[in-house]
Amino acid sequence: MKVNLMHGAGGAVFSDLLGKTLTKYKNNNAGGIGLESLDDGAVIPFGDKNIVFTTDSHVVRPLFFPGGDIGRISVCGTANDLSMMGGKPIALSCGMIIEEGFDIDILEKIVASMDEALLECGASLVTGDTKVLEKGAIDGIAINTAGIGIVEKPVRDNGLKPGDVIIVSGTIGDHGLCIMTTREGFDLGEQIRSDVAPVWELVKSAMDAGEIHAMKDPTRGGFSNAINEMAEKSGVQVRINEETLPIRNSVRSASELLGINPLDVANEGKVVMGVSADDAEAILKAIKKNKYGKDAAIIGRVTEGKSVIMETSIGGERFIEAPVGDPVPRVC
Amino acid sequence: MKVNLMHGAGGAVFSDLLGKTLTKYKNNNAGGIGLESLDDGAVIPFGDKNIVFTTDSHVVRPLFFPGGDIGRISVCGTANDLSMMGGKPIALSCGMIIEEGFDIDILEKIVASMDEALLECGASLVTGDTKVLEKGAIDGIAINTAGIGIVEKPVRDNGLKPGDVIIVSGTIGDHGLCIMTTREGFDLGEQIRSDVAPVWELVKSAMDAGEIHAMKDPTRGGFSNAINEMAEKSGVQVRINEETLPIRNSVRSASELLGINPLDVANEGKVVMGVSADDAEAILKAIKKNKYGKDAAIIGRVTEGKSVIMETSIGGERFIEAPVGDPVPRVC
Ligand SMILES: Nc1ncnc2c1ncn2[C@@H]1O[C@H](COP(=O)(O)OP(=O)(O)OP(=O)(O)O)[C@@H](O)[C@H]1O
Ligand SMILES: Nc1ncnc2c1ncn2[C@@H]1O[C@H](COP(=O)(O)OP(=O)(O)OP(=O)(O)O)[C@@H](O)[C@H]1O
Ligand SMILES: [Mg+2]
Ligand SMILES: [Mg+2]
Ligand SMILES: [Mg+2]
Ligand SMILES: [Mg+2]
Ligand SMILES: [Mg+2]
Ligand SMILES: [Mg+2]
Repeated sequence: MKVNLMHGAGGAVFSDLLGKTLTKYKNNNAGGIGLESLDDGAVIPFGDKNIVFTTDSHVVRPLFFPGGDIGRISVCGTANDLSMMGGKPIALSCGMIIEEGFDIDILEKIVASMDEALLECGASLVTGDTKVLEKGAIDGIAINTAGIGIVEKPVRDNGLKPGDVIIVSGTIGDHGLCIMTTREGFDLGEQIRSDVAPVWELVKSAMDAGEIHAMKDPTRGGFSNAINEMAEKSGVQVRINEETLPIRNSVRSASELLGINPLDVANEGKVVMGVSADDAEAILKAIKKNKYGKDAAIIGRVTEGKSVIMETSIGGERFIEAPVGDPVPRVC
Repeated sequence: MKVNLMHGAGGAVFSDLLGKTLTKYKNNNAGGIGLESLDDGAVIPFGDKNIVFTTDSHVVRPLFFPGGDIGRISVCGTANDLSMMGGKPIALSCGMIIEEGFDIDILEKIVASMDEALLECGASLVTGDTKVLEKGAIDGIAINTAGIGIVEKPVRDNGLKPGDVIIVSGTIGDHGLCIMTTREGFDLGEQIRSDVAPVWELVKSAMDAGEIHAMKDPTRGGFSNAINEMAEKSGVQVRINEETLPIRNSVRSASELLGINPLDVANEGKVVMGVSADDAEAILKAIKKNKYGKDAAIIGRVTEGKSVIMETSIGGERFIEAPVGDPVPRVC
């Protein structure tokens, strides 16, 4: 069998490759939360605290897009997976693979953008590696970052409980539709901007405001993929109220034009969380104070059962399913 | 200006790109040894111990070669950079970038080889990421690993002191000449095998046996590059005794045939260290007990001054210079 594009698109087909091949390691756990959990990061006990450890590679096209660039996404992507475990981002590594002939001016711009994002994250880039491949062996540049964070009490993606409330930290679908419309050269009157941003401060204020039972960043495969993973791993049903889902008008128009569901595409500065009902208002209020949380909303609730159900505006119901894979290739 | 192949070959030209572009981060240190040191890894104080953190990407061709494969090298490369800081390897991340159409059977073999190497290292692979690129956008597969280790007292690459003795843990040039002869299809009677191996146990026994002042793994740019970096960063001269340098006959023959200096090519299971003269014999003895240290030798000494000098067998002297870049493309 051969690897196909959907194997790298973060959806159901990818899960299959993961389960059958990529997670066959017997040496998969360093004492805490390991690869077996398939969470946003791993956790390793260290003294009386825990190290969080995660990685993402970035191959987004174009390299620069409205609202961000491959450098910003490389820093935020990894810092956000640390944050999803409740971990404060501390240090990042950077492995660059560059095509012969790549412009050093562009490389400098990418480094400057990474540095700016690092400052915002409060993390440092402390180690790296560079490989240059012959012309044609890699398309431009690929950037891997790994990250280390610190957490006292890790947050998982599988802790949803019946009675919990689902919160999303802002509008859905911005990054994926930004990449798609930029690539296609669409003019929608209003420019759709990527939401790529570090969410640690937002997550921290939410953790300080109440009890978070489960958390995930809706990246490849979008909100649909993240919420399905959370529901399935937690062994619960999630019911989403369609009317409360924050989606920009421009994103909605673009998604209709392109035939792409905004719930299925990557976000790069958002969080989906399940919180105890008692704390929901306090947590929402804390999130809304953050500059990346202004459009946060309570969008659903957790019940006994399985699957993710959309309660539509006209009183109907339908399943929200994890997409086969993110519909936007090279989205991050 | 454009990136060229030598920019990724770990030698003098790469150092230039590093200094001018890749290490311009202002956010470059998380409290201990950061990017500014350009050592094999970074060190971050944590409680009463230290975390070591490092990364390498791997793009070696062919994927499988005598003595190893891209999986084994991906695990050992990162585990060895941790070891060079005195750090016990604990956990690794794995970021794979795969070309559409890549054979899943081969992927399975790579994963199995990584797992075997992890077992030997005593480390676990705890987190990962997978991107699949359209056909032609990446040549086959590239594997990034980052690693976390633990150390009480870090070892640097810049601690050589006049009077120190230089030890190498085994034969020089095996990996680079293995890749080159395999690629060219040379038949030298005897097959040259890569030395790719994890050196943590060897390093630990050396640290237990005496005082190590500086340590580096002679990977891209080989022994020449590593020893020059150590000498320059330490502000000392190093004098190497040519007769004592362990080089296999097959490697010597191949290097003459190909016009490649075996001192300039990558090794993947070796250590170069500077140790206090009083402890040299004890450390050498400890290293020789390890299965990867049988050919270890004392090969030189440290004096006041600068540069690296080869004292030749016939009583002459010449400089050992850092190569412009490793002469073998895609060696690791
Ligand atoms: N090549 C791989 N080797 C080992 N584990 C992997 C690999 N690829 C992915 N994983 C693991 O699979 C799980 C899902 O990975 P995925 O990359 O989809 O998560 P994510 O980083 O949260 O999402 P995204 O990459 O879209 O930001 C994670 O637990 C990750 O550690
Ligand atoms: N893209 C990068 N960004 C930041 N730092 C980098 C980058 N590439 C290399 N470095 C830093 O430059 C120094 C030299 O890197 P290099 O990869 O040559 O070291 P190494 O891993 O010990 O050698 P090798 O890669 O041949 O095994 C290291 O300190 C590394 O952290
Ligand atoms: Mg995630
Ligand atoms: Mg991620
Ligand atoms: Mg390196
Ligand atoms: Mg090294
Ligand atoms: Mg290395
Ligand atoms: Mg990922």
